[in-house]
Amino acid sequence: MIQTVLTQAVAASRPAAELGQTASYIPELSKVDKHHLGACVFTSDGGRYSAGDTKVRFSIQSISKVISLAVALELCGFETVFAQVGMEPSGDAFNAMGKLEAAGSSPSNPMINAGAIAVDSYLEPKISFDRMLAFTRKLCMDPEIGLDEKVYHSEMSNISRNRAIAYLLENKGVIRSDVERTLDFYVRMCSLSVTAESLAGLGLLLAGGGICPATGERLLSPDTVRVVKTIMLTCGMYDGSGTFAVQVGIPSKSGVGGGILSVVDRRMGIGIFGPALDGKGNSVAGERVLRHLSQQLHLHIFDADSQTD
Amino acid sequence: MIQTVLTQAVAASRPAAELGQTASYIPELSKVDKHHLGACVFTSDGGRYSAGDTKVRFSIQSISKVISLAVALELCGFETVFAQVGMEPSGDAFNAMGKLEAAGSSPSNPMINAGAIAVDSYLEPKISFDRMLAFTRKLCMDPEIGLDEKVYHSEMSNISRNRAIAYLLENKGVIRSDVERTLDFYVRMCSLSVTAESLAGLGLLLAGGGICPATGERLLSPDTVRVVKTIMLTCGMYDGSGTFAVQVGIPSKSGVGGGILSVVDRRMGIGIFGPALDGKGNSVAGERVLRHLSQQLHLHIFDADSQTD
Amino acid sequence: MIQTVLTQAVAASRPAAELGQTASYIPELSKVDKHHLGACVFTSDGGRYSAGDTKVRFSIQSISKVISLAVALELCGFETVFAQVGMEPSGDAFNAMGKLEAAGSSPSNPMINAGAIAVDSYLEPKISFDRMLAFTRKLCMDPEIGLDEKVYHSEMSNISRNRAIAYLLENKGVIRSDVERTLDFYVRMCSLSVTAESLAGLGLLLAGGGICPATGERLLSPDTVRVVKTIMLTCGMYDGSGTFAVQVGIPSKSGVGGGILSVVDRRMGIGIFGPALDGKGNSVAGERVLRHLSQQLHLHIFDADSQTD
Amino acid sequence: MIQTVLTQAVAASRPAAELGQTASYIPELSKVDKHHLGACVFTSDGGRYSAGDTKVRFSIQSISKVISLAVALELCGFETVFAQVGMEPSGDAFNAMGKLEAAGSSPSNPMINAGAIAVDSYLEPKISFDRMLAFTRKLCMDPEIGLDEKVYHSEMSNISRNRAIAYLLENKGVIRSDVERTLDFYVRMCSLSVTAESLAGLGLLLAGGGICPATGERLLSPDTVRVVKTIMLTCGMYDGSGTFAVQVGIPSKSGVGGGILSVVDRRMGIGIFGPALDGKGNSVAGERVLRHLSQQLHLHIFDADSQTD
Repeated sequence: MIQTVLTQAVAASRPAAELGQTASYIPELSKVDKHHLGACVFTSDGGRYSAGDTKVRFSIQSISKVISLAVALELCGFETVFAQVGMEPSGDAFNAMGKLEAAGSSPSNPMINAGAIAVDSYLEPKISFDRMLAFTRKLCMDPEIGLDEKVYHSEMSNISRNRAIAYLLENKGVIRSDVERTLDFYVRMCSLSVTAESLAGLGLLLAGGGICPATGERLLSPDTVRVVKTIMLTCGMYDGSGTFAVQVGIPSKSGVGGGILSVVDRRMGIGIFGPALDGKGNSVAGERVLRHLSQQLHLHIFDADSQTD
Repeated sequence: MIQTVLTQAVAASRPAAELGQTASYIPELSKVDKHHLGACVFTSDGGRYSAGDTKVRFSIQSISKVISLAVALELCGFETVFAQVGMEPSGDAFNAMGKLEAAGSSPSNPMINAGAIAVDSYLEPKISFDRMLAFTRKLCMDPEIGLDEKVYHSEMSNISRNRAIAYLLENKGVIRSDVERTLDFYVRMCSLSVTAESLAGLGLLLAGGGICPATGERLLSPDTVRVVKTIMLTCGMYDGSGTFAVQVGIPSKSGVGGGILSVVDRRMGIGIFGPALDGKGNSVAGERVLRHLSQQLHLHIFDADSQTD
Repeated sequence: MIQTVLTQAVAASRPAAELGQTASYIPELSKVDKHHLGACVFTSDGGRYSAGDTKVRFSIQSISKVISLAVALELCGFETVFAQVGMEPSGDAFNAMGKLEAAGSSPSNPMINAGAIAVDSYLEPKISFDRMLAFTRKLCMDPEIGLDEKVYHSEMSNISRNRAIAYLLENKGVIRSDVERTLDFYVRMCSLSVTAESLAGLGLLLAGGGICPATGERLLSPDTVRVVKTIMLTCGMYDGSGTFAVQVGIPSKSGVGGGILSVVDRRMGIGIFGPALDGKGNSVAGERVLRHLSQQLHLHIFDADSQTD
Repeated sequence: MIQTVLTQAVAASRPAAELGQTASYIPELSKVDKHHLGACVFTSDGGRYSAGDTKVRFSIQSISKVISLAVALELCGFETVFAQVGMEPSGDAFNAMGKLEAAGSSPSNPMINAGAIAVDSYLEPKISFDRMLAFTRKLCMDPEIGLDEKVYHSEMSNISRNRAIAYLLENKGVIRSDVERTLDFYVRMCSLSVTAESLAGLGLLLAGGGICPATGERLLSPDTVRVVKTIMLTCGMYDGSGTFAVQVGIPSKSGVGGGILSVVDRRMGIGIFGPALDGKGNSVAGERVLRHLSQQLHLHIFDADSQTD
């Protein structure tokens, strides 16, 4: 039944790609064919369901913020990570600086650029990018994940705004390590190349509380996973997070590469690829697929008919 | 076991009242003894647990926003309610006007004053305050709920800021009905007098998807309840909602009268009264009680050991 | 020579009316023929020069803020007027509330609505509107100035935003007298009906330091006039004041009725009527007339070739 | 008489240094003895008047923005300079980014850091710092002006906020040349070492419309000087410019090194050094000296008793 619903969801959502555009602010991302759409569901009982372009590689972009946050919680601890980064949805765009600028303020949460750059500044002195890449492959159960050099260089050539954010964070004492190294680490994490399948794998790991579904190995602690899922729910879909929580009700994180990582707690991981974005930076067709799945399969956290087992 | 944990939670949290203050901006609220603390848990299997001052009446204040939203969704429909009111956490204080002021903007969500006043402007032409009061008594299974005349008059004498918000909403076309009648309706709803028990009753009704636990009567539709619980989770604790979601993970709504309404989906309703507030307007001791209960009883929405049945 | 330059300036600026629009937010103002253009120059040596529609009556609107400020300085004193109203250009639109909303803030200056409403709240308990009207007639040497009832009622029907501003000021303790009486006073002052000649008369009085050019009577103190002229220079042309100061360099105050009051210190008063407004609310053709006059007659405060005597 | 007034003004204002602090955000500036106070008046008829510490060298800081603007107007032209930099007072602090951050916005004016950095980005490709230094010496009639290496290095070590501003400007397309070179140029200009006498010299040159009082050589065009003086008047004293214009009424520019450059049009140049700053970044004692001089010598632009000759 999941396969049927998934196939229908993808078919019904595909035309919505016309309503969106690929990310324009990074040339390399704007070149992607906006008509791609793929969705993948991995269930806790071992089911694997796919529809559409689930093996096409694309840029992970902001979804890497989830991985950075999780690893930072493991390596630096909750207190350090959240000493100067908040846990509040900001209601602002992902690259906003306005609130950050006010005296005494700090990044609202680790899912906006300012917060993620701060988190990466704590992480970068503790772990090399190569080890992050290796760990990301394990989290996603996808050994093919790699750095997309073209995206990396395209982003590094259009880094002015994030560089401004990072130096403002340094000015505010939020970043204390090297700014340029932090930015390089941040951009590398954003330039990882994944598939809808990779994201479904990561989603299932988070749904299962941090235990790798393939090996049974614990990769993340339950506390880390609980924090990450909650922040995905409140802050994961940019300044559309609240509306998405009402309408879909599945902790998710989107990226301007067109991906969405979704976690149906205890039950499934979902990975989406649909590079046509709406005005907030979320995959237009991807959101429709998730709304469809949520309604048909009763996946909303507060769905009255959800089956939890 | 619930009773033991509850009693401990209240005892352990009571000293925290020293860290807070009663609401200062309404004289009548500031007079309340800040050392009150009571917590009440009603479970879906009929359990009733109480500790502390659970029968003391206090002012419902912003918790009435949940009731207004629920009734507005029933009487006006989702589309009308959210045509000009958003579902996004704002990251701003409950009485903020800044974002609202920008051209084309509208209230972020129905849990801040601007959003609630807008919702009441849709509701007021459709239902009298007397009928709202009667329905509130049913929702809370508490026939004693009434209007606190002193609080009502105290608030009406300190209404300038909310009046400014309301006229700005009229200026933006968000309010189309009579502003002064809307304000009166809004202040009356805020001036209802409840107990921790009343809130536990309302919480249990929401936990059960809208069916009155006492009579089995459906009072609210499942869709209404799902929307309300989600918005409580993302926006219910003022600009501390995100942190509360991470740390406690129970959909809740606080009021500056010191109350907190909490909903553990499918399992229990919780009502708290603790009038000493923190800087964001949330009950200091009440938040501690909930953190304690969440940890001990595994009530966090993403708790790995929660028992859902 | 002044007459020649003035006639040329009006002729050359007339086509610019096509680039603007009459004020849209008050129905009665939007009905005015936007092609009107008139300019009047009164010089300290008794010269009277006119070109175009200088006898057409129009709504004084924000130019009345200059009169209210001057009278408030006389009746209440500098310390009272500026205790909670600033003297800083805000860089924001005339009806902005954003900055005002921040805790501890107060109106930036008396030329924006918030500041003018505050000033009128100090003035209204001290002087009746009828006496203000009589004094305005003297200041402008125009006994025909009266209240335009249609404009007054049109504005009172569209007062939501100013009412919001006024109640926010009450909330902040800036207004302590009756809000509705203050608003009525404010709107009456805005609804006075003047001509370009009236404004030239007022301008000449200010140029002469407060002495009525016709009677030799001192109507305003030198200190009041100095303050008023300075604030006109820094704040008089809405959020285009700085640019206007650079390009024209004549202390001026515009109104959305299309008027501009200008003061060439010691030398002349200028009155303009041109109801087609630019995006900031200033008369498009009127600004061009003034730029023309400033260049041709060397009227800029820092013009290297100005003749001061 | 000028000497008597000046001596009195300095003596009367000296105690006010206790109310202020030296600039704290750059270590090298914070070390200066805050009790210094000196004031220098150069008149158009050749008078030279001094009181206090007029030969002590200090850091020019933001006063260099006047020089950069003047030279940019000469070398790049008015249209280029003001294509993306405004002429409006912002009402914000000198290092604010808030307004700049909004989509489509650009620096409010060339006297705040954002605007000055933009202006320097136009200037830097056209003129070397060494030539700027040489020209500054001529403008100030002070061949001793040099780069204070300690201040320069101290500022370069605390550049995060200005670097953030500069990269945000690059992101917005306001800066198109090399950001790091622009910042170096900007910091060098801020690190010039001047005296109260140097500033009086520059002030007299501006008072005279751009002609060097010593040599009779025209160093700046009349248009450049008119623009510069107007912007000093509306934007020169940070977010206290409007109040200063009302109370003192002399086009001035302050720097956090404690200097103030003032221009009494046609009549005199004034230079002040008083490193104790108020909360806005202006010399506390220096402002008092200027208020005293303005009142006693009738220097306010709209003083009714000023003598213009």
